[in-house]
Amino acid sequence: MSDAGFDFELTHTDGRARRGVLTTPHGAVETPAFMPVGTQGAVKGVTHRELKEVGAEIILGNTYHLYLRPGDDLIARRGGLHAFIGWDRPILTDSGGYQVFSLAARRTIDEEGARFKSHLDGSAHLLTPERAADIQAQLGSDIAMVLDECLAHPAELPAARASMERTLRWARRARTRMEALRAGTVDGVTVTNPGQAQFGIVQGSVFPGLREESARETVAIGFEAYAIGGLSVGEPADVMYDIVGLTTPWLPEDRPRYLMGTGTPGDLVESVARGIDLFDCVLPTRNARNGQLFTSAGRINIKNARYAEDDRPPDPSCGCYTCRTCSRAYLRHLFTAGEINASTLNTLHNLHFYLDTMRGIRDAIAFGRFESFRLAFHERVSRQPVDS
Amino acid sequence: MSDAGFDFELTHTDGRARRGVLTTPHGAVETPAFMPVGTQGAVKGVTHRELKEVGAEIILGNTYHLYLRPGDDLIARRGGLHAFIGWDRPILTDSGGYQVFSLAARRTIDEEGARFKSHLDGSAHLLTPERAADIQAQLGSDIAMVLDECLAHPAELPAARASMERTLRWARRARTRMEALRAGTVDGVTVTNPGQAQFGIVQGSVFPGLREESARETVAIGFEAYAIGGLSVGEPADVMYDIVGLTTPWLPEDRPRYLMGTGTPGDLVESVARGIDLFDCVLPTRNARNGQLFTSAGRINIKNARYAEDDRPPDPSCGCYTCRTCSRAYLRHLFTAGEINASTLNTLHNLHFYLDTMRGIRDAIAFGRFESFRLAFHERVSRQPVDS
Repeated sequence: MSDAGFDFELTHTDGRARRGVLTTPHGAVETPAFMPVGTQGAVKGVTHRELKEVGAEIILGNTYHLYLRPGDDLIARRGGLHAFIGWDRPILTDSGGYQVFSLAARRTIDEEGARFKSHLDGSAHLLTPERAADIQAQLGSDIAMVLDECLAHPAELPAARASMERTLRWARRARTRMEALRAGTVDGVTVTNPGQAQFGIVQGSVFPGLREESARETVAIGFEAYAIGGLSVGEPADVMYDIVGLTTPWLPEDRPRYLMGTGTPGDLVESVARGIDLFDCVLPTRNARNGQLFTSAGRINIKNARYAEDDRPPDPSCGCYTCRTCSRAYLRHLFTAGEINASTLNTLHNLHFYLDTMRGIRDAIAFGRFESFRLAFHERVSRQPVDS
Repeated sequence: MSDAGFDFELTHTDGRARRGVLTTPHGAVETPAFMPVGTQGAVKGVTHRELKEVGAEIILGNTYHLYLRPGDDLIARRGGLHAFIGWDRPILTDSGGYQVFSLAARRTIDEEGARFKSHLDGSAHLLTPERAADIQAQLGSDIAMVLDECLAHPAELPAARASMERTLRWARRARTRMEALRAGTVDGVTVTNPGQAQFGIVQGSVFPGLREESARETVAIGFEAYAIGGLSVGEPADVMYDIVGLTTPWLPEDRPRYLMGTGTPGDLVESVARGIDLFDCVLPTRNARNGQLFTSAGRINIKNARYAEDDRPPDPSCGCYTCRTCSRAYLRHLFTAGEINASTLNTLHNLHFYLDTMRGIRDAIAFGRFESFRLAFHERVSRQPVDS
């Protein structure tokens, strides 16, 4: 399939796992891909060149944060988010909805959209499907997401149905707005990336019937590609895997599939096994800043006293800058002493681990041995306890 | 001159300015040189490879901090500070005295040494000339400093004389201890760098007579080289320049001269003009974290609202990573948003500016045009107001 500036080619399949290439106005992304989260126009603790070094081909920006500070108008005047932050590779932006639900004060939702107060200064804002599209058009990301309603978990079936149906109505409004933005008929909005794609989002909580209906109806609207939202919100991992596994068959084979906000390294492997192509998650970056490192032998908490005199690198089998140059003892000292270098070095390692896992996944798919990769990965990484 | 592992060769002189090469067990340093401050075993905000990229050939470690956390015993068991932090170039350590005077709680000084309580946990410690030498022997820096008494400014002549004389007595004890450490006759201390040099420190406040006496007597003890301490403590810049200018003639021509804790870029140029070879200062790194950038057109405060939509790099004539890839608008956003990336990017730039200034100084001396460099530098940089 191909749209203006946006393309996706499947190059290999292995069972339900897929390998491919996503093309955007800012270049190509090999999938399955993991997107580091660059909340406010920066992935916390690492420079852009460090991101490229660990293999990041695409990053995610948070529309809620960028809209509030420095503002999409200011970013549009700079030529868009790529120019503003100096990142020349692809960017995906979320709709802002998730942060409105999780961060903003006094939010109220009605059919029009989400009214909320800024967590920064208490100012009042209204985020509608149209505004979310407009803001992302000004940011000029390569992939924009529709505004969806984010339901708390657990939800009862009637509430989940109502929310899913509202998300569908919002998706239709978002698509109509996107078409107007592409036609140049929206006044006061600067479209800084004319090749921007728009992804629809499947909702429906943990109810298979709702997920099927949401997928069919969202696909019927016709987006460049589709995401699965409303997971990784507190449900058990096997429930998430089940919902992913029964949703992907309803999504077009020739479009990338994005599982939003997930997850652990094991979650990535299990979701690829069910046909997912794109991921984002704050886990590698946030946990790094809290001293938790993902390694090929399980997670370690670098602040643990047991590492005070441990001269080994965090992961002896890792080739990242941190593991090539730092011992656990030094990283523990930096963390204990409150040095921001600890955040940088830990983040570099965790992102390398995540992106290296994706490389391993892609290679395994290409060679038709994803199933053995998956088993070995769980044996080695996922089933190890923390600090084993 | 040459001692085991330590050497200094003057290669050029231009007026009183000197260019040379300092050799240590961990390699050579071109002088005049600026040492970024790596307080707790890391230069805050930048990785070692970033330090090397901006041209750092030697860094400074703070004995007070490293002694308290993680402790010199732990570092000695790791093989010394170089091995512990993974920095393979030269390191100079201070004696710990300055931080005892500025950071520690309830400090008392007597002839034996400085008694103080840790600012971390209130534990009681005694730092003597011998302990300062022992701790630095365990850290294994390439250059160790003697413990000196740090006098508050302003000081009356009798107090300044008494303090200078105590510093001399401490210097003799420190040298005796260093000889014992080199002879291997100090039990319980692991000498992790047998080629470590020891520098004496000239004191005497702003009194020329005391400075002369201190210099003569310190040189008479016989250290590998000499530092000027007790300046940059609040006295006017021209007073500091005068004291530097009248002290360096009393120091041996064939030994490097280190002006401790100084200073602004203009201070470096003026001190080189008076025969100084080595500098350290927290100004470029600390100010970076507070949003102040040194540029070839004067200092700018990146948090200033005037930069919100300024697409120029911090310093259009600078070749550092930050200036090559970031606008003032982006840096202001990162600072305003509280991103630690702001500290990293600002620190990279400021260190590049300082180290590039030193490169310019060295080149000017080699070509016999230091005086014109000095005039042009002040015209361009030092005399510009902030945010001009």
